[in-house]
Amino acid sequence: MFDFNYYTPTKVVFGKNSESKVAELIKEFGGKKILIHYGGGSVVRSGLLKRVTDILDIAGLEYVILGGAVPNPHLGLVYEGIEICKKEKVDFLLALGGGSAIDSAKAIGYGVFNEGEVWDFYDYKRQAKGCLPLGVILTIAATGSEMSDSSVITKEEGLIKRGYSSDFGRPKFAVLNPELTMTLPDYQTSCGCTDIMMHTMERYFTNGGNMEITDSIAEGLLRTVKKNALILHKDPSDYDARAEVMWAGSLSHNGLTGCGNDGGDWMTHKLEHELGGLYDVAHGAGLAAIWGSWARYVYKDCLARFKKFALNVMEVKDCGSDEEIALAGIEAMEEFYRSIEMPTNLRELGVKPTDEELVLMAKKCAVGVGGEMGSAKVLNEEAMLAIYRASM
Amino acid sequence: MFDFNYYTPTKVVFGKNSESKVAELIKEFGGKKILIHYGGGSVVRSGLLKRVTDILDIAGLEYVILGGAVPNPHLGLVYEGIEICKKEKVDFLLALGGGSAIDSAKAIGYGVFNEGEVWDFYDYKRQAKGCLPLGVILTIAATGSEMSDSSVITKEEGLIKRGYSSDFGRPKFAVLNPELTMTLPDYQTSCGCTDIMMHTMERYFTNGGNMEITDSIAEGLLRTVKKNALILHKDPSDYDARAEVMWAGSLSHNGLTGCGNDGGDWMTHKLEHELGGLYDVAHGAGLAAIWGSWARYVYKDCLARFKKFALNVMEVKDCGSDEEIALAGIEAMEEFYRSIEMPTNLRELGVKPTDEELVLMAKKCAVGVGGEMGSAKVLNEEAMLAIYRASM
Repeated sequence: MFDFNYYTPTKVVFGKNSESKVAELIKEFGGKKILIHYGGGSVVRSGLLKRVTDILDIAGLEYVILGGAVPNPHLGLVYEGIEICKKEKVDFLLALGGGSAIDSAKAIGYGVFNEGEVWDFYDYKRQAKGCLPLGVILTIAATGSEMSDSSVITKEEGLIKRGYSSDFGRPKFAVLNPELTMTLPDYQTSCGCTDIMMHTMERYFTNGGNMEITDSIAEGLLRTVKKNALILHKDPSDYDARAEVMWAGSLSHNGLTGCGNDGGDWMTHKLEHELGGLYDVAHGAGLAAIWGSWARYVYKDCLARFKKFALNVMEVKDCGSDEEIALAGIEAMEEFYRSIEMPTNLRELGVKPTDEELVLMAKKCAVGVGGEMGSAKVLNEEAMLAIYRASM
Repeated sequence: MFDFNYYTPTKVVFGKNSESKVAELIKEFGGKKILIHYGGGSVVRSGLLKRVTDILDIAGLEYVILGGAVPNPHLGLVYEGIEICKKEKVDFLLALGGGSAIDSAKAIGYGVFNEGEVWDFYDYKRQAKGCLPLGVILTIAATGSEMSDSSVITKEEGLIKRGYSSDFGRPKFAVLNPELTMTLPDYQTSCGCTDIMMHTMERYFTNGGNMEITDSIAEGLLRTVKKNALILHKDPSDYDARAEVMWAGSLSHNGLTGCGNDGGDWMTHKLEHELGGLYDVAHGAGLAAIWGSWARYVYKDCLARFKKFALNVMEVKDCGSDEEIALAGIEAMEEFYRSIEMPTNLRELGVKPTDEELVLMAKKCAVGVGGEMGSAKVLNEEAMLAIYRASM
């Protein structure tokens, strides 16, 4: 068992029509001039943006609007947001959307609060001293960025995708209304469920000691998402299933499912980041496409955890050798991915990198993690390449 | 499923020697002049108080000290603390101890921040507008007050015990070092484990809808505390078991195990509060002494939840009627209480109220909850009296 810090200051307002409270929440945290930041046009088409600006108008709050955050959000738009905030004297950020809008807003917040080049933080060169306060109205349950300390930005030049984590980036509030996720395409719902499960699984597959209470929370969360992802695959309008998945998304990445562990493995995420940087694939689908190959490469070095996962999450029968049970758990997870139309290899993901590109991805991934990384098993560049090749 | 708010801003620093960070934590939250508030002499005898004042001295932080918070902490000491804070211009409170010291400190914080009579908040007359910032170094895992919004104070005149809940009262930080709980008497460890489980059970036994993910967290937490309470009963120095129980204590009462529920039942707590007000019994032991009688009185009106509890927490075999399974779960819980030397009725608790006193307690309890209360089953004064009588 490891010592840990746990800090989740985000005020969560969960339920139907909870976005109606956005103005009072912004005022509670001192916001007067707001940058509303969103991604694609869905928040326009759904009427959410109009509803929010109406609420801010009535409350007498000033705002400017910046859309256009794409999946794997780009540094260029972050620069644009920083410029607008400085020019308009913005003192509060409101992200409408999912991880793209939130992560982009976090980067804007770091760029406004701190002098100098914002990419420095993502390039491991220095630490932020603060961040403009940020609120979120979530429209897709996936990245958990609404409560997490992390944001991921892609630099267009060289398609370099990097994450930065700081408690300053944790949103002040998160408005979670499951109804806002009802209109998501099934593929995005499945990608979101995959991402949510992976945030807990990255923390779960470790060799560094663990806490029973954290394991029980992690396993309960994974069972809940698995069950409700299947419900949503059949009936996307099931409110309760939407709510279970949405709350799981926040809890999966706010730190709760890692308390007492060694920080987690995170290599599936790192391997996917290179993929996402090069191909602009949906993050959740990329994770699903990599995970099975990663798991088969590492499970023998983390056998007790893979067995526990098989028994307590995938509900595999407790018979056979530890290795057989662990492998049955991996297979059951892949079967689950397929049942919600997620890929289990790069081919199913729809990308066909050449072997030269795989070599390049492995090289970039190794550089990105400082040579080698992993808790279930420490992976170097050679191991990363082997996993990429196995995932073809 | 109900809408909910979730707000747990307390920064948790968990692990061995974590109290060494107390000065930097106080500075992070802006504290300059501190009131150190503690309960009995154990923090003096163990050397913790000296260690903390040494750290503050080195950090150049000024402080005054007020001990004497008793279990079921008294209003008189709260007044004394308020006086000291005003006179000494204290801007930060540091509670060393368990629920008594923390709850007393919260009340002092309300009293300093707000004009007028502090008992008003506990007497449901008005709401606090703020609270002096508060940090905690926890020495007993029990009340969860280190992350919760609640505090319970007893007014000496008439021995009236009342709770007040406000987000302003949530501590800024909580230092959780399981080693600090190693020297607790076994009885207090058992009382703490009971209190922790009850905080989740009060939220669990409801008729108002629930969330699967919350249930899975609640059940996992209860199984963890049950298992580790038994370990600590045999080996009080087991660090991992101390850590599991300590973290469970904070999660059990910070709101996590009630998300999506109707707010919970809380009648066992209310019934115990009258007992604790009259007899100064240990809170956890009082809860254990009441719970079985409460459960038998209400379980038929909340059968699905009692069955789920029996199967998923007490690991009762899934055979027989729902009622039989529910009753087996209640019996198993009482058996667990007995196995950690907790009472399951008032006799075992060591108090012998006359029937007149039971009538008075039921009357005071009914007044305290505004006539009737409960979610598993709504209880009026007559029902409260029946449960008190059954618990003799």
